[in-house]
Amino acid sequence: MDVDSLLSNSCRRDWQTVEPAEIEPVRFAVIGLGWFTTGRALPALEQSEMCEPTVLVSSSAEKAERMAAETDGAAHGITYEEFHDGAASEAYDAVYIVTPNALHLEYVETAAALGKDVLCEKPMERDSERAVELRETAVDADVELMIAYRMHTEPTVRRARELVANGYIGDPMSVTGSMSQRLLDRIDPDPNQWRLDEALAGGGALFDIGIYPLNTARFLLEADPVAVTGNVSSTHDAFDEVDETVAFSAEFPQEVYAQCYASHNARQSSGLTVTGTEGQVRIEPAFFQDRTRKLHVSRGDGRATIAVERVDQMLEEFDYFADRVRGAESVYPDGDHGVVDMRAMEAVYEAAESGRWVSLE
Amino acid sequence: MDVDSLLSNSCRRDWQTVEPAEIEPVRFAVIGLGWFTTGRALPALEQSEMCEPTVLVSSSAEKAERMAAETDGAAHGITYEEFHDGAASEAYDAVYIVTPNALHLEYVETAAALGKDVLCEKPMERDSERAVELRETAVDADVELMIAYRMHTEPTVRRARELVANGYIGDPMSVTGSMSQRLLDRIDPDPNQWRLDEALAGGGALFDIGIYPLNTARFLLEADPVAVTGNVSSTHDAFDEVDETVAFSAEFPQEVYAQCYASHNARQSSGLTVTGTEGQVRIEPAFFQDRTRKLHVSRGDGRATIAVERVDQMLEEFDYFADRVRGAESVYPDGDHGVVDMRAMEAVYEAAESGRWVSLE
Repeated sequence: MDVDSLLSNSCRRDWQTVEPAEIEPVRFAVIGLGWFTTGRALPALEQSEMCEPTVLVSSSAEKAERMAAETDGAAHGITYEEFHDGAASEAYDAVYIVTPNALHLEYVETAAALGKDVLCEKPMERDSERAVELRETAVDADVELMIAYRMHTEPTVRRARELVANGYIGDPMSVTGSMSQRLLDRIDPDPNQWRLDEALAGGGALFDIGIYPLNTARFLLEADPVAVTGNVSSTHDAFDEVDETVAFSAEFPQEVYAQCYASHNARQSSGLTVTGTEGQVRIEPAFFQDRTRKLHVSRGDGRATIAVERVDQMLEEFDYFADRVRGAESVYPDGDHGVVDMRAMEAVYEAAESGRWVSLE
Repeated sequence: MDVDSLLSNSCRRDWQTVEPAEIEPVRFAVIGLGWFTTGRALPALEQSEMCEPTVLVSSSAEKAERMAAETDGAAHGITYEEFHDGAASEAYDAVYIVTPNALHLEYVETAAALGKDVLCEKPMERDSERAVELRETAVDADVELMIAYRMHTEPTVRRARELVANGYIGDPMSVTGSMSQRLLDRIDPDPNQWRLDEALAGGGALFDIGIYPLNTARFLLEADPVAVTGNVSSTHDAFDEVDETVAFSAEFPQEVYAQCYASHNARQSSGLTVTGTEGQVRIEPAFFQDRTRKLHVSRGDGRATIAVERVDQMLEEFDYFADRVRGAESVYPDGDHGVVDMRAMEAVYEAAESGRWVSLE
């Protein structure tokens, strides 16, 4: 593994096991029609050869039907209540859940009862207890469950992971990661949105965006944290229930430390760096979809910055899910994987309360 | 303040108060003739218009005399014992102390007794108690004391500090900083060197290089930490007395958190990032003298990378010291300033033992 081999075909789908033309597309019921669904998820599903957005589910029948009429491949627009009642269940194979965190479990329960596979947005739920229940619900019904960590199929992240796994940077020694944005600028004029509501979200900046550096560190190190500490803070009144900003540290095996930062009130910025005994890989910008990712690698006297072609991250994620549902390989970011983040994030909040390191073992 | 004004004359000495031609150069006794002195300090002193290296002090009379003969402006090569006895004291106005940390105090005591001003390498001493004694010694003798934080006169750092102070990034929200190198590769074949000796060094990676992101964060924020936590680790036998690697977090006022990392066993790397509500400044590479620093700034939709002309950091530092000794302005990184770092670093070690946050208030 060297930079040359990384440059050639950097966006290859090394995870792919089935040929798109040889499978039946996975037909999705898309649950929750907010800006992320309309702006990111539906365009990717329309474009995919391996997936189809056949059913759209919203609180409003009118909105669901209107959007179904506007979406290629969508034949049904139904309400949440109709979904729970099994409406149009012959028209989809899987559900994509992109509702407020605290509602994930109820949609998984219905999907599992209907025998549908599940792609569930991260974080899994509003707390680890419900996340475990969600996982068990899928296991008991023997349906696939994937948590939607789109960084796992982001080519830049996968190439960085290969470099680390192949010893390009020697032994990993530390990780630095961050993600920030001005949430209030984005959601204005909707200050009552669910991300600010502790009962619906479970957490603030940590749950919403801190999960990116946390989970991507796990993915790059192929390891899970053994202890965490951290601090949360809020300066704006809108963040009276959930954290506006979080700074946390996670200890991984072999005394590798990840130091992470996330804020809903700092300029948009994201990056992830793994420093090893022999070299360093850095992805920056790292997490926002609208920016071309750059991979900065260095070893010995050399350093290079590689702009990896921008892919549609949602398309990669949906196609990976379809590959795993239709093929024989199992899902990497499964329920167990998601629960690890939930427990780690809750431990960060616990550490922020106690001023201590909290063990995860 | 914008990027254009930053680009014009980026290396200006905004700290300068006296004209070099109008002052008598400050004549230095340089105490400790290791690689840093010969490779970095003496060339800068030879080049300076405001300083002169008139006396060289070493454990070996032969080495001191030989190097004095090879150094422009040096008239005396004396031993440590001769220095303490006041030898050649008419030939210098100030001392530059670049010995193992635990020896700083004794040279300051002699310098103070002789009425000489002091430029003392960082960290101040091996522990905060001795650092306080060092500070009091200089205060009691009414001599100038400056701790040798060369980042304070590094143009890239000063320009970044101006951007922060002038609100370019909005309110600072977080700092990320790191410095790493392979110490054992550098010091081979001298595994017994003082940096690995707890009694002489006081600490390992934290004291030697972790102090760079810590102190530079303080300098950029113009604030001091109120609490710290951290972890230390060592994987190599050579680091059985001091920390090979440290990961620490520092809380600053207004809930600004700095997350820092330093390792003596990771690839050479250094960087410092301040993220604010409106923008971000990042210096990378940041701390090593042999690399051209780059200043990465972003705000709104814009971002720019500025390669700041490389200056001789030691020359800037020596000339700043001479400016303050000869002029009316006081030294910024004085004894009080240095003691803050000593206490913060000791608190990181305490936190690493206890697994808690340690308050500095």
